[in-house]
Amino acid sequence: MKNKGTRAERELLHMFWNNNWACIRVAGSGSMPLPSPDLIAGNKDNLLAIECKSIKNNSKNFQKEEIEQLTTFSDILGAEAIIAMRFDNIGWHFLNAKELPKNKNGNYTVTLKLSQSKGIKFEELIKQFKQLKL
Amino acid sequence: MKNKGTRAERELLHMFWNNNWACIRVAGSGSMPLPSPDLIAGNKDNLLAIECKSIKNNSKNFQKEEIEQLTTFSDILGAEAIIAMRFDNIGWHFLNAKELPKNKNGNYTVTLKLSQSKGIKFEELIKQFKQLKL
Repeated sequence: MKNKGTRAERELLHMFWNNNWACIRVAGSGSMPLPSPDLIAGNKDNLLAIECKSIKNNSKNFQKEEIEQLTTFSDILGAEAIIAMRFDNIGWHFLNAKELPKNKNGNYTVTLKLSQSKGIKFEELIKQFKQLKL
Repeated sequence: MKNKGTRAERELLHMFWNNNWACIRVAGSGSMPLPSPDLIAGNKDNLLAIECKSIKNNSKNFQKEEIEQLTTFSDILGAEAIIAMRFDNIGWHFLNAKELPKNKNGNYTVTLKLSQSKGIKFEELIKQFKQLKL
């Protein structure tokens, strides 16, 4: 599970570098004052704090706190909060964490369907970032 | 040596968080396309890529390549390239990596004297960043 997540982070990291964005993986968050994202990526015009999920199924639940921590971190850093979903055999979709629809219980569920209808692909993320709207 | 460096990075990381800046440690650079800085710190107005050195002596040599890699990374990310020097029993001084004076051999030497005369203290780094000039 951990290795799959790490592989996905590295894959995405290289995708950014291959498109002349800088990207780093954040070191273990154990000793951090605030839970941190998995990746930070940017170029002169954009800065993204990214939580990555690589999943086999078509749906992933997020606790309310996980999304709040990502958006709080991003607000302090001055970055956009991005959920990067990698679906097996389908690929990456990117969602604005601040515009995820909330479940009745306050948590979040990101499905493949939501990702396809409301998310954007990598090419759009890096080329037309301003269009990232749910 | 490694532990001392890690302790210094964590100390600086907490200094940023305590002043409402976000800061993260960069995960091991082994698999990175480009050598990466130790820390990335920022708030809404500033973004810093930081190489940390914690030393017992009053002088530290940097290879030309090390400084070039830091400034190249910073340019791609859109951050300022900062050398953070921690001298035992004296504390932190911060220098703009792009304005370090070059040795005749093309490398760099950052002394305590240079750090005190041309660097700035943490309080200045976070409050008056625009004044960071060698």
